[in-house]
Amino acid sequence: MSAQSIEPFDAVSVIRAKRDRGRIPDAEIDWIIDAYTRGVVAEEQMAALAMAILLNGMEPAELSRWTEAMIASGERLDLSGVSRATTDKHSTGGVGDKITLPLAPLVAALGAAVPQLSGRGLGHTGGTLDKLEAIPGWRASVSNADFVAQLNEVGAVVCAAGDGLAPADKKLYALRDVTGTVEAIPLIASSIMSKKIAEGSSALVLDVKVGTGAFMKTEADARELARTMVALGTAAGTNTVALLTDMNTPLGLTAGNALEVRESVEVLAGGGPSDVIELTVALARLMLAGVGITDVDPQDALDDGRAMDSWRAMIAAQGGDPDAPLPTARHTHVVTAPASGMLTRLDAYAVGVAAWRLGAGRARKEDPVSAGAGVVMHAKPGEPVTAGQPLLELHADDPERFERALQALQGGYDIGSAADFTADPLIIDTITA
Amino acid sequence: MSAQSIEPFDAVSVIRAKRDRGRIPDAEIDWIIDAYTRGVVAEEQMAALAMAILLNGMEPAELSRWTEAMIASGERLDLSGVSRATTDKHSTGGVGDKITLPLAPLVAALGAAVPQLSGRGLGHTGGTLDKLEAIPGWRASVSNADFVAQLNEVGAVVCAAGDGLAPADKKLYALRDVTGTVEAIPLIASSIMSKKIAEGSSALVLDVKVGTGAFMKTEADARELARTMVALGTAAGTNTVALLTDMNTPLGLTAGNALEVRESVEVLAGGGPSDVIELTVALARLMLAGVGITDVDPQDALDDGRAMDSWRAMIAAQGGDPDAPLPTARHTHVVTAPASGMLTRLDAYAVGVAAWRLGAGRARKEDPVSAGAGVVMHAKPGEPVTAGQPLLELHADDPERFERALQALQGGYDIGSAADFTADPLIIDTITA
Repeated sequence: MSAQSIEPFDAVSVIRAKRDRGRIPDAEIDWIIDAYTRGVVAEEQMAALAMAILLNGMEPAELSRWTEAMIASGERLDLSGVSRATTDKHSTGGVGDKITLPLAPLVAALGAAVPQLSGRGLGHTGGTLDKLEAIPGWRASVSNADFVAQLNEVGAVVCAAGDGLAPADKKLYALRDVTGTVEAIPLIASSIMSKKIAEGSSALVLDVKVGTGAFMKTEADARELARTMVALGTAAGTNTVALLTDMNTPLGLTAGNALEVRESVEVLAGGGPSDVIELTVALARLMLAGVGITDVDPQDALDDGRAMDSWRAMIAAQGGDPDAPLPTARHTHVVTAPASGMLTRLDAYAVGVAAWRLGAGRARKEDPVSAGAGVVMHAKPGEPVTAGQPLLELHADDPERFERALQALQGGYDIGSAADFTADPLIIDTITA
Repeated sequence: MSAQSIEPFDAVSVIRAKRDRGRIPDAEIDWIIDAYTRGVVAEEQMAALAMAILLNGMEPAELSRWTEAMIASGERLDLSGVSRATTDKHSTGGVGDKITLPLAPLVAALGAAVPQLSGRGLGHTGGTLDKLEAIPGWRASVSNADFVAQLNEVGAVVCAAGDGLAPADKKLYALRDVTGTVEAIPLIASSIMSKKIAEGSSALVLDVKVGTGAFMKTEADARELARTMVALGTAAGTNTVALLTDMNTPLGLTAGNALEVRESVEVLAGGGPSDVIELTVALARLMLAGVGITDVDPQDALDDGRAMDSWRAMIAAQGGDPDAPLPTARHTHVVTAPASGMLTRLDAYAVGVAAWRLGAGRARKEDPVSAGAGVVMHAKPGEPVTAGQPLLELHADDPERFERALQALQGGYDIGSAADFTADPLIIDTITA
């Protein structure tokens, strides 16, 4: 008998069950996730299973079990030492999506605790940690003890996730990336939710973005992903709700690390772009309602400085200097409006790729990012522009980057008349269990 | 730039095309088969693609290109030195399927050349080479020069395929075996046909078996496989036709290596079981017609000794002694009829598994087989039996093997009345281009 013959199941029969549109039995789900993490189930076997899941789907209970097995492959965060109710937010990623920066301190200012493990950016969407790292002195790494202490004292921590949460997901994500199976909704949902559930907060609000700058291009797909994640969170005992929000246009007027910190601070100071304020307030209400706090007005806490105080404490607790000047890029290039009229479209994907190429994002995990690089928008769709006025301002440390950023922006905006413009709502729908 | 970045395509976009139910462009098919053979496309990427092909299918022209790319991964047999017209046969595998043994010399006796590269058995179906190796002195390995010479002089060669034909198929088959993708009809068809087309004969007759003892359990699947293979052969310029034949009952009265050689010699001597004769003659007619030989009667060549002469020459040319006694198993065990009546069913799969467990087949490629082991049937469905008469005779070198073989035979046959029996035709249909 070989070592492998003591395994209780075999990978081929699990693959066959899904290939033939069946439900994988619970014990076999537990086994295959564990055996894959241990390296007993080979990469090619999991690749075939991932493609079968992508094409044949999973039943809700089956996907819940799959997600639980992913969580069981690693550790769960212990939030028992946190005295406040814990509530978290996850965005599926977009262009100019700096919402976590004003949101976490705002919710903390209103009495809840926000334990947020974030990631770095890859591709055209920026990462929250990359943005905060533009603040001089700020550290993404927080020990377990400091994490709990900061939640009790400040009420908000945004930091890097350790390797201990859902290691099966880490392995599976790398595999999906090279096998054309990233787009499987059950696998996207379980990847996100396994980590979010393992983080252990009582409530969770999901911001599922839809549009050119989002991972989900159609409302139908975004809606399915939102419903699937809300069902998974609910099944795991986390009070979960999702917003479906527009990502055809960038959020706010900036895309880039330090640029987005600056805009977030404006919002925390009671100003800032109306779309960023609208989404921040809406998400704060849901995060607070998720832990039973309904008698507060987030807008008040932005207006009266409580959110700003909380931000300053949160940044300082992780070594950052909230008063230090933020880095700026060495070079700028202005794109002017080619005609007068109404800006009827400003494509999120085009702006995201431009910011990425200017140095705000990375092509590979190990690449550095530029803190100052990015795009400043001087108009948003629905606003009038005059021929020759600044439309976009590109920021880069290396002026050679402007050319490829400008290429990304070609065809990325339209100037027309008011008749050509329809204002789409930022918040499309709320998905509850 | 890394070495991989000079590849003209990337595996993920090829996988996505098939995942999204598209047709893979010709140049990408050529590339992915070549890059997989070179090891540039990883096993997990081909596994995901194989599952997408299994679930989403392939268009006929797409599958032809895929098959051509598999052929191009290796060498083609050069039959230009063969003076006779070349015609070949392939069976998808069944229990008691010794047809190649009388068929190849029969067709050679009637003027065509039969260049048959065969395999060894795995699982419950026997392999042609295992059967011929029961003949003392016979060698499966033949050099390229001897291959052509034997085709010119004798007219038939049955030998082992070298590693040079379709190496992509060899790699892909091993992958499919561990990833639950063996059952994809396009992949089965291209696996068989890439090797058969690379063998280079002018005509090809496929014996596609359907039933409990066959790989294809339903007529619909067998028909689809037959149609797919006939289309592939035709597209490649090989005159291809298929028979759909029954494999719910074993062929002939023996399953096992030396046992089947003995029965084949009976057929070559003008006797033998009627089903073996029927199928041998039908396949011979099609193989000959495929190269324009239509004015001969295969039954005559069995009756008048020409086929036997050809057999003796073919065996002797590969070192075998056609007059040497064949090996016999050291132990036998007789299964008697439990009741009198008509034998209404004798299940091919049950007999195949019994023969395998008695030692006639192997569980792993590297296992040896027993030349003498197997099952002799004393009655076939439709024949009367008397309680207590011998029904099956089990042959094994190791008497401990009887018990598990008897388990395999439990429920494998029924004795009833003539009213319970329907005679199904052996040859179900002929599939032409």
